[in-house]
Amino acid sequence: MAGNARPASFDRGSRFCVETGFHVRYAETDNMGIVHHAVYPVYFEEGRSQYMRDMGSDYALVEQSGYLLPVTEVQVRFSGSLCYGQQARVRTWIAESRSRSVVFAYEISADDNPEILVTGLTRHVWTDREGKVTRLPQRWHRHFQPRSR
Amino acid sequence: MAGNARPASFDRGSRFCVETGFHVRYAETDNMGIVHHAVYPVYFEEGRSQYMRDMGSDYALVEQSGYLLPVTEVQVRFSGSLCYGQQARVRTWIAESRSRSVVFAYEISADDNPEILVTGLTRHVWTDREGKVTRLPQRWHRHFQPRSR
Amino acid sequence: MAGNARPASFDRGSRFCVETGFHVRYAETDNMGIVHHAVYPVYFEEGRSQYMRDMGSDYALVEQSGYLLPVTEVQVRFSGSLCYGQQARVRTWIAESRSRSVVFAYEISADDNPEILVTGLTRHVWTDREGKVTRLPQRWHRHFQPRSR
Amino acid sequence: MAGNARPASFDRGSRFCVETGFHVRYAETDNMGIVHHAVYPVYFEEGRSQYMRDMGSDYALVEQSGYLLPVTEVQVRFSGSLCYGQQARVRTWIAESRSRSVVFAYEISADDNPEILVTGLTRHVWTDREGKVTRLPQRWHRHFQPRSR
Repeated sequence: MAGNARPASFDRGSRFCVETGFHVRYAETDNMGIVHHAVYPVYFEEGRSQYMRDMGSDYALVEQSGYLLPVTEVQVRFSGSLCYGQQARVRTWIAESRSRSVVFAYEISADDNPEILVTGLTRHVWTDREGKVTRLPQRWHRHFQPRSR
Repeated sequence: MAGNARPASFDRGSRFCVETGFHVRYAETDNMGIVHHAVYPVYFEEGRSQYMRDMGSDYALVEQSGYLLPVTEVQVRFSGSLCYGQQARVRTWIAESRSRSVVFAYEISADDNPEILVTGLTRHVWTDREGKVTRLPQRWHRHFQPRSR
Repeated sequence: MAGNARPASFDRGSRFCVETGFHVRYAETDNMGIVHHAVYPVYFEEGRSQYMRDMGSDYALVEQSGYLLPVTEVQVRFSGSLCYGQQARVRTWIAESRSRSVVFAYEISADDNPEILVTGLTRHVWTDREGKVTRLPQRWHRHFQPRSR
Repeated sequence: MAGNARPASFDRGSRFCVETGFHVRYAETDNMGIVHHAVYPVYFEEGRSQYMRDMGSDYALVEQSGYLLPVTEVQVRFSGSLCYGQQARVRTWIAESRSRSVVFAYEISADDNPEILVTGLTRHVWTDREGKVTRLPQRWHRHFQPRSR
């Protein structure tokens, strides 16, 4: 089942990818002394935000233009964890782009170590402000294509 | 890929399942006016906590007994969303139990409507306090078996 | 300074007060093994939400009626802390109500112990949807008066 | 009452102060379209973490040395708010240091505007790992003194 195979879209291959880093926040840690697993979708979101900034735009402008990109699926795999005192390094790329949806994929490591600790993807659908599914707006077409390095 | 097929373990079938409900918190909403997608793994965790309580125990006692159940995978699928003013109803069941891992599955709806808005699963591995993978402790064997109604 | 004296509005006296309880969430704990201090303003918000429900309404209806109650001040004092496995018991009352603002006060204990662990207040101002300060709407006058038991 | 007067320790005066900035996270926004008020104590915590880093250390090392600095009081005042698409700029300084406690104070603005939107303070007490109150450890004396520019 899904948990047993690494979906193709997890593989970065030669995809153009954007990297961002930030300090783990104490509030993000839990009783186990590690970053709580529900924090990683927020780190992914920071990865997407940085992706848009590196593309010369901002997700805030997508919403201001009348479109939303709600999440329809989240997958996260953990082979390790981050702790307070470390920095998260998030690599983000577009794994798939269709007329009405887009998939971002992510790799997270601690910036003092190349080992990949967390991988994941988020699937999004294009909607208008009322939540009606729409096609990828022409205005945003350029920003949401998978790219090679 | 994972996003395209509904894993078997999402299907509740005749599994014994525990239900819990609580009010959506204002802090859980986001700029779209809905519960932010990263909140659902926390709702799942509440579902697991209630599952343990309904089994006559508490996850706190699992940790006190020297074992941890860190999350190794999270999957969430969204067909709708919750808003402030609604109550979340979370149904939780054990989809799979192995000697060293367990998979919980979840369904979330708004308590004023039977429609399932969010489904998901979490995969966990049994470890000791040092994080070394262990076998399902005998003491907890009974609590972590998939059950039929 | 503020930290040295317990403000009058912290004193419940004979004020009508609403109580709600819920389980501490694992995600709310931190590296110290206790509920992270930034979680308590969210518990306060749950207290306010329950206050409105006990008054026969819902804060969601306040916003639907075109008004907002943004927070202009938060104070929290800690004499103890909650842990995973405990239930939070939140008592909420209106400490002060003016033509354009309202102050809620709170006491939090663990439901297995009467000791008050956390106290606090939140000050709010009435605004319209554009954020312009307004008077307490007539429609909501009844719900936001301090009450005696 | 506390809400009516600006405590002395809110005044930065000529105190040495550390500045850090980061992007507002979408997950931090709420139904009002602004950063939820409970997020600011987390921003303050980031301010304290950066303060320690600028002092050539790390709060993680404080805990590794056997000491904790739990929060005994939080105060936050709001004269404005941040939105997604903005960057938070947090200025942090030590307002008071005693043998067993320390007070940090904070100012937050949006980095495209000097206007101070949020001010606050956090009071902390020195404890050992068992939570017993201790004196400011000699090892950390240098890092926790109020300083002038």
